[in-house]
Amino acid sequence: MEARIVKQIKKIVGQENVLSNIEDRICYSYDGTFKRGIPDIVVFPGNTEQVVHLVKFANIEKLSVFPRGAGTGLSGGSIPQDGGIALVLTRMNKIKEINNQDLLAVVEPGVITGHLHEEVEKQGLFYPPDPASLKTCTMGGNVAENAGGPRAFKYGVTKDYILGMKVVTPTGELMHVGGRTVKNVTGYDLTRLLTGSEGTLGIITEITIRLLPKPKEKKTALVIFNTLEDAATTVTAIICEGVIPATLELMDKITINCVEKNIKMGLPLDAEAILLIEVDGSEVQVIEEIAIIEKVCRKNLCRDVQVASLPEDRERLWKARRAVSSAIVQLKPTKISEDATVPRSQIPEMVRRLRGISEKYKLHLPVFGHAGDGNLHPNILADKNDPEEMERVEKAVAEIFQAALDLGGTLSGEHGIGLMKKPYLEWELGEVGLKYLKAIKSAVDPNNILNPGKVF
Amino acid sequence: MEARIVKQIKKIVGQENVLSNIEDRICYSYDGTFKRGIPDIVVFPGNTEQVVHLVKFANIEKLSVFPRGAGTGLSGGSIPQDGGIALVLTRMNKIKEINNQDLLAVVEPGVITGHLHEEVEKQGLFYPPDPASLKTCTMGGNVAENAGGPRAFKYGVTKDYILGMKVVTPTGELMHVGGRTVKNVTGYDLTRLLTGSEGTLGIITEITIRLLPKPKEKKTALVIFNTLEDAATTVTAIICEGVIPATLELMDKITINCVEKNIKMGLPLDAEAILLIEVDGSEVQVIEEIAIIEKVCRKNLCRDVQVASLPEDRERLWKARRAVSSAIVQLKPTKISEDATVPRSQIPEMVRRLRGISEKYKLHLPVFGHAGDGNLHPNILADKNDPEEMERVEKAVAEIFQAALDLGGTLSGEHGIGLMKKPYLEWELGEVGLKYLKAIKSAVDPNNILNPGKVF
Repeated sequence: MEARIVKQIKKIVGQENVLSNIEDRICYSYDGTFKRGIPDIVVFPGNTEQVVHLVKFANIEKLSVFPRGAGTGLSGGSIPQDGGIALVLTRMNKIKEINNQDLLAVVEPGVITGHLHEEVEKQGLFYPPDPASLKTCTMGGNVAENAGGPRAFKYGVTKDYILGMKVVTPTGELMHVGGRTVKNVTGYDLTRLLTGSEGTLGIITEITIRLLPKPKEKKTALVIFNTLEDAATTVTAIICEGVIPATLELMDKITINCVEKNIKMGLPLDAEAILLIEVDGSEVQVIEEIAIIEKVCRKNLCRDVQVASLPEDRERLWKARRAVSSAIVQLKPTKISEDATVPRSQIPEMVRRLRGISEKYKLHLPVFGHAGDGNLHPNILADKNDPEEMERVEKAVAEIFQAALDLGGTLSGEHGIGLMKKPYLEWELGEVGLKYLKAIKSAVDPNNILNPGKVF
Repeated sequence: MEARIVKQIKKIVGQENVLSNIEDRICYSYDGTFKRGIPDIVVFPGNTEQVVHLVKFANIEKLSVFPRGAGTGLSGGSIPQDGGIALVLTRMNKIKEINNQDLLAVVEPGVITGHLHEEVEKQGLFYPPDPASLKTCTMGGNVAENAGGPRAFKYGVTKDYILGMKVVTPTGELMHVGGRTVKNVTGYDLTRLLTGSEGTLGIITEITIRLLPKPKEKKTALVIFNTLEDAATTVTAIICEGVIPATLELMDKITINCVEKNIKMGLPLDAEAILLIEVDGSEVQVIEEIAIIEKVCRKNLCRDVQVASLPEDRERLWKARRAVSSAIVQLKPTKISEDATVPRSQIPEMVRRLRGISEKYKLHLPVFGHAGDGNLHPNILADKNDPEEMERVEKAVAEIFQAALDLGGTLSGEHGIGLMKKPYLEWELGEVGLKYLKAIKSAVDPNNILNPGKVF
């Protein structure tokens, strides 16, 4: 990068907030995928005005800008794949307001999601979205990729909690979208358009989020099934009883075996499926709901139900689910984590197809995830240094996407498209849909400055 | 309209599905506002393909297309204000699927919202959005304007239930957006962008909606307050107890007086506010919640609480709320129904300001609406044949919008912008926001065919 440009950028954000050594730049070259791209410069703006100046300057100099938070994304959405500016928003990490009358909070994009959870819960409030990376990921990234998590089944994903934002447009202008009210139909819904736009339509510098009252009680059930079909039927049967659990997580046999090998909590190695079900609400409500769930599980031929109410007992059951990621990577070092999502009724068929794909390409393919909303996580375990295996992975991934679409599903439930899934985007959106997306992008980012090459 | 063009349109949809007499065209010149605009032709397509052909033809001939359903809108969103084609989607009124496993339905845009309610409830399912016009309004219009209703407080508005759509783009191409899964982050969220876009970005020809299990029980409380402040404090206090009622409706003193005069149900004429609160859920849940609500109301100095559980008793309490619209129009014939929305905590201040505006301009201004989400309905009653009064109305409306924005609110909570509010749009969105909206519109509708002149 030209010294003249580096000098100007340092002038905008301060010398101490710029990294240009190769060692430093490599640290900002990756996310949670195996994709890499080294930025020409790494910049840490401290406020919205600096972001405005940086983006204006980038438009003048025709520099690509790659906004990012903690880099935990699973789509390659924040990778600076052709150099340019890595714009890191982690310094902007203030919780500006928690308002228990209007049930909202105002946060900067660098706030860590788990930290926000803690702070609002201290005031008896609740921010539901809970991506697995919540202890490190940031709110800006969550909004940009529209993160989900286990609680999405009952409570929805990030987009369902975004009331408004301050956004720096791709041409470097400050825009306020949405506001502080739950109802708002003033103009097009830019709040929702920007949520999940993966940093291509604007840089989010402040977020107003909707909160809920914190549920008073929780109860958790770990349910073991002999067949996957019984587990899937149980999911639908619970919902048909009018019960919407806060989480409804599934683990298949391969996952169960990996977890048990790793943490030895006594899971039966011959079980085909485990459901981890949690209900929340008032005391009477959780007692009633867990009783219904237990009845439905037994009626649908589960092998065993363990129910826990105390936090430490619930935590023991959750241990199985939390151990999944670290357990499965012991199969192979490179984890390709997909999030193809199907309508709930198609879960058994999707799992059957995933098993077929696993056998066909001789790949480890444990399946776990959010059964309530059909958002499974088929994970392929491989070794990125083995090109022949990675070729098989690529073919398997394509077949996974095709299977999800065949069953009325979608490429991505909660990770986004980024770099990883963009070759497949047209399969789902069609030529017309893709053209519509591109028309929007070109209209608001005529110089193609913001996160170029992502999504499409 | 040239005979050649009329002939071509008749060829596309069939002669029997075209109206061109002035008497017929006048019938399609209005909506729920006092705005008028006579279309050059009225067309009733029977399927998506016909809509594609019509819009393609309109692009060739540069004809404006004004999509509409039942014409119950309150923003002028469907008015053909400069001639062109009124494209009426009421013939496309099939419920194509109700799926109780995947909790979804697929409907055509002409399906009447209330009819959908009935059909899904027969299967133990629930579609929450309940605009006041639900017995006549159509799903397409609900989606285009992002309709709300009393149940929005607990359940959200129309956009929270739209999974996917078939859309004819402004250039006449068929596009599928979204799908059949609750989680979907594949590409920009066009489903949400199109919801509430008031027919300017695409014509919706099929809608996939999310359903919920139908709540088993309901309980309703009518609560009378001596002061508006007590009522407002009660709303917040209920939420702080962790209870989210299905509906939380407010009526101010003027509204109470109109209603009582009209239906004589024994409402106290000196009360400053009534709250109508309904909870739903399982039996134990509604018993628990209504008890908490009653306690909170009494603690916050309500004058009286009446609780009803049986459908006929609940209906008696709801009678007061349902009588509002017909009662207030007896004050004056022209009703200007606004839906400026403020953060919940600002309701008392908003009502104070509305009273000031009413006095300043000597106008009848009853206030009622959805207190839970700050979505008040200040209604001005006037006579549209009295130009001097209508001038005062116009000034009062501008002050209402300014007051809502001053208090951190929005111009429109659930009616949309249409023609009525477009002069004020920039007050809320700013120059940059408005430019961003216009860029999107021009990019996808280069010939400005679809509902031109609406929103901005």
